[in-house]
Amino acid sequence: MRYPTSAKKYEKPKSFSNRGMSLEDDINTSNQYYLTNDIGILHKKPTPITIVKVDYPKRSAATITEAYFKVPSTTDYNGIYKGKYLDFEAKECNSKTAFPFSSIHPHQIKHLKSVSKHGAIAFIIMRMIQYDKDYLIKADEFIDFYETTDRKSLPLSWIEEHGHVIEKKYTIPCNYLKVVDEVFDF
Amino acid sequence: MRYPTSAKKYEKPKSFSNRGMSLEDDINTSNQYYLTNDIGILHKKPTPITIVKVDYPKRSAATITEAYFKVPSTTDYNGIYKGKYLDFEAKECNSKTAFPFSSIHPHQIKHLKSVSKHGAIAFIIMRMIQYDKDYLIKADEFIDFYETTDRKSLPLSWIEEHGHVIEKKYTIPCNYLKVVDEVFDF
Repeated sequence: MRYPTSAKKYEKPKSFSNRGMSLEDDINTSNQYYLTNDIGILHKKPTPITIVKVDYPKRSAATITEAYFKVPSTTDYNGIYKGKYLDFEAKECNSKTAFPFSSIHPHQIKHLKSVSKHGAIAFIIMRMIQYDKDYLIKADEFIDFYETTDRKSLPLSWIEEHGHVIEKKYTIPCNYLKVVDEVFDF
Repeated sequence: MRYPTSAKKYEKPKSFSNRGMSLEDDINTSNQYYLTNDIGILHKKPTPITIVKVDYPKRSAATITEAYFKVPSTTDYNGIYKGKYLDFEAKECNSKTAFPFSSIHPHQIKHLKSVSKHGAIAFIIMRMIQYDKDYLIKADEFIDFYETTDRKSLPLSWIEEHGHVIEKKYTIPCNYLKVVDEVFDF
């Protein structure tokens, strides 16, 4: 269990486009843009935790005083876009050569497989920190590789071949819906 | 702020069909049935909280030692069914005569309105505890009434007229997808 993963610790000086924000920050900003402009309704789910103790002090808000991070059973993001159910997981990767499968929970892979089978637009957003690049990878293609390989990671060459580079704009720092339009059938 | 609302405190002796479980428990059991039988993929989102302090003791799991409940910005449940995005909120109501609008956050109503406009199957599941009945109410009909009335609550007569009674089965204690099939267009 390594929750919550702190994106900050991996940070290096970045180009303007990235401004040292984590992938989660950039996706949240992009989702806010999509929401405000009525393009799509996508939200990050809250972090799953198990609450053990709650104090109810008089005259003030309930305080959780003991809780633990849970392994997520689904992905972190979902919502609706152009009338379709959309579901994705987002991961930062610090390696220069490969994305380790250990970074993503088997539960999450199973979830992506199920929703894709049910007709979802399902994918993974992968930030290759060393190259300052975000890729959209279709869940189906990721899962095909994952289920048929003996490797413990996704090689960079595979990511470059199968991934779709996501545009970074000032107002939409991770403009993944543009790629969704280009690579999924509606 | 009244999070988390404890459903338990309203409980009375119940018929077999209900077995004293909260609406949340019944929906979770139903969702598990839908998931296991590959009917639909619906999940409750984790409770939204703001984490303030986390301890990282050596040799054991990270412990959250200070956190607060947040007002949710979306509904509690969403997922995919028959290829469609599905989104709903679930509420228990202890009154015999009406469902108070104060039980549902304006954010959640706004969210239901937005997703419905984008093509979602959007609704509210309302448990009328005193009558041991669960109703599915289409978000659009709820919102129409909510936006045009001066009342502070939804009268029981309205609920009985516009709501659709949800079947309770042992294996699917809140079989809302059956009602979804009957009342939404696919």
